[in-house]
Amino acid sequence: ALAAPALAQTQPEIKWRLASSFPKSLETLFGTGEYITRRVAEATDGKFQIRSFAAGELVPGLQVLDTVQAGTVECGHTVSYYYVGKDPTFGFESTMPFGTNTRQQNAWLYQGGGLELMRDFFRSYNVINFPAGNTGTQMGGWFRKEIKTVEDLKGLKFRIAGYAGRVLTKLGVVPQQLAGSDVYPALEKGTIDGAEWVGPADDEKLGFHKVAPYYYYPGWWEGGPTVTMLVNIAAWEKLPKAYQAIFESACADANLHMSAKYDVLNPPALKRLVANGAKLRPFSKEIMQACYKASQETFAEDAAHNPAFKKVFEHWSAFLEEQRSWFRVAEFGFDNFVLNGIPKK
Amino acid sequence: ALAAPALAQTQPEIKWRLASSFPKSLETLFGTGEYITRRVAEATDGKFQIRSFAAGELVPGLQVLDTVQAGTVECGHTVSYYYVGKDPTFGFESTMPFGTNTRQQNAWLYQGGGLELMRDFFRSYNVINFPAGNTGTQMGGWFRKEIKTVEDLKGLKFRIAGYAGRVLTKLGVVPQQLAGSDVYPALEKGTIDGAEWVGPADDEKLGFHKVAPYYYYPGWWEGGPTVTMLVNIAAWEKLPKAYQAIFESACADANLHMSAKYDVLNPPALKRLVANGAKLRPFSKEIMQACYKASQETFAEDAAHNPAFKKVFEHWSAFLEEQRSWFRVAEFGFDNFVLNGIPKK
Repeated sequence: ALAAPALAQTQPEIKWRLASSFPKSLETLFGTGEYITRRVAEATDGKFQIRSFAAGELVPGLQVLDTVQAGTVECGHTVSYYYVGKDPTFGFESTMPFGTNTRQQNAWLYQGGGLELMRDFFRSYNVINFPAGNTGTQMGGWFRKEIKTVEDLKGLKFRIAGYAGRVLTKLGVVPQQLAGSDVYPALEKGTIDGAEWVGPADDEKLGFHKVAPYYYYPGWWEGGPTVTMLVNIAAWEKLPKAYQAIFESACADANLHMSAKYDVLNPPALKRLVANGAKLRPFSKEIMQACYKASQETFAEDAAHNPAFKKVFEHWSAFLEEQRSWFRVAEFGFDNFVLNGIPKK
Repeated sequence: ALAAPALAQTQPEIKWRLASSFPKSLETLFGTGEYITRRVAEATDGKFQIRSFAAGELVPGLQVLDTVQAGTVECGHTVSYYYVGKDPTFGFESTMPFGTNTRQQNAWLYQGGGLELMRDFFRSYNVINFPAGNTGTQMGGWFRKEIKTVEDLKGLKFRIAGYAGRVLTKLGVVPQQLAGSDVYPALEKGTIDGAEWVGPADDEKLGFHKVAPYYYYPGWWEGGPTVTMLVNIAAWEKLPKAYQAIFESACADANLHMSAKYDVLNPPALKRLVANGAKLRPFSKEIMQACYKASQETFAEDAAHNPAFKKVFEHWSAFLEEQRSWFRVAEFGFDNFVLNGIPKK
């Protein structure tokens, strides 16, 4: 009987709530939050229970940070670039234009010092962050007309949020903020000229190809965005160490599983979209280079005025340059051959 | 006091041994096994303890499967392609020539049906497998002379193991099996003409650049090899469900961390190698295409005689084709631009 109190101490019953930024219809995004809660429950014999709420059930999807910060819910599954309006530094924890791909983003966060830097930043918001998903490179979005030159961007009403919207204003784009459900009618009526969403698996459900058939790639503003788990620091510190370890591994596990799931769902969705009228188009090199230049200008503006941004940006830029010097060799050599060099039968 | 037996039931003290295929000097590979044992201990308040043994401490590195199969140790951290001599079907769980990259390998295993298929196959060896590491695309190895044409491969004594060795014999290469510590003297004396190892971070320590300076890429036989955790089935079934969940998440967590660690260590190692005399060379398209053709012939031979191989190969090939139809779009569009399309200042 002496052992009982010690065991009760290390395996208490804990109930948390999770606010997701995603509706249930984005099932890979929303489902990854549920994957984490299931993993945590399994690993604790059901003693650590986390109940998920879809966007809007407890709070609107874009207020997840605020509600975790306030401690109203213990944790939230979201994307940090939703909060660049508060501070552009948030962007680095998810992705920045022409930044890391999925592998490099994970390398930066887990082993390159990125997570420590971002946790320093998040601490002032009373939260601790855990990478907990990644979509892979997203698509560049749906357009009613072809976009061939930089000139074609001028005056374009494009549904795009966050940092990339700011970048695109330098090229004359007029960014539009619209909730997911409002995008289709706006594209249909021509109130907007284009819209970015995620990638084939999620885009297909909204039917954009019927009203804006030009499907551009790549989404240069999202080379490999991290989906994150934010935890209120006071709630985190109350967890037993074993539960902390379980939660942390479940998030890393989920990070990998989300990429894998998108990679499995996207190829057949893309095929169906093309069969149903989507017209795949790469952004021209001219457009890509102009957007790259505009991104660098935006970074420089923020670095000049925001010391937190400058600190992370410098670390991240140096890391990115190193990564590219290596990815250019074995990884790109392999991918380029298997994608483009295999002899036809 | 009633609660004590139930708690003792769900959190028993368990001690396992782990046989690693890797020496401690391959610190990212060996260290990932230790990462898993640490994660498991943390998540169970030290109640599930796994002690790691480096290659040779309990059994030689290439006998990990046998020892886990026999139940002499409960688990082993290894690479499935070490066992293609028993059956080439093992190869798919790690990597096959011109196969998946790291992302695609994880997608196939976790979400594409690959893990179920491979577990069916491993079951007859009395083990259950968990992806538990990935190195990323490896390098093509070190050569004393430049290898420019398919003709240059004829008679070449090349230290390479497993399936790719068989593929290369079709092109006249004479594969050599040598333990890591014997490679340097053999290259120095010219007993062998070349040797493949892993990638910059691991290769640097062995000093191959001093005696065989031509450093080729990519290692087309290892686009993104999975490092695996094999567990004896009887030992696995004795674990409480919570420990199973903890162990499984720790392996997935470790899988992601190994990629991240290699991605962080390789870039500076490659720079140092080049500064110290390594001469980076891509395999020519002619060589890559000849090797691709030889790989397909080898696959066809095995599929004709080995029903287990045929079953996995057909699933894997169809998956690979789907993956490439999608990776050619957003991922490659992004990577190709950021690696090769950014305007010079």
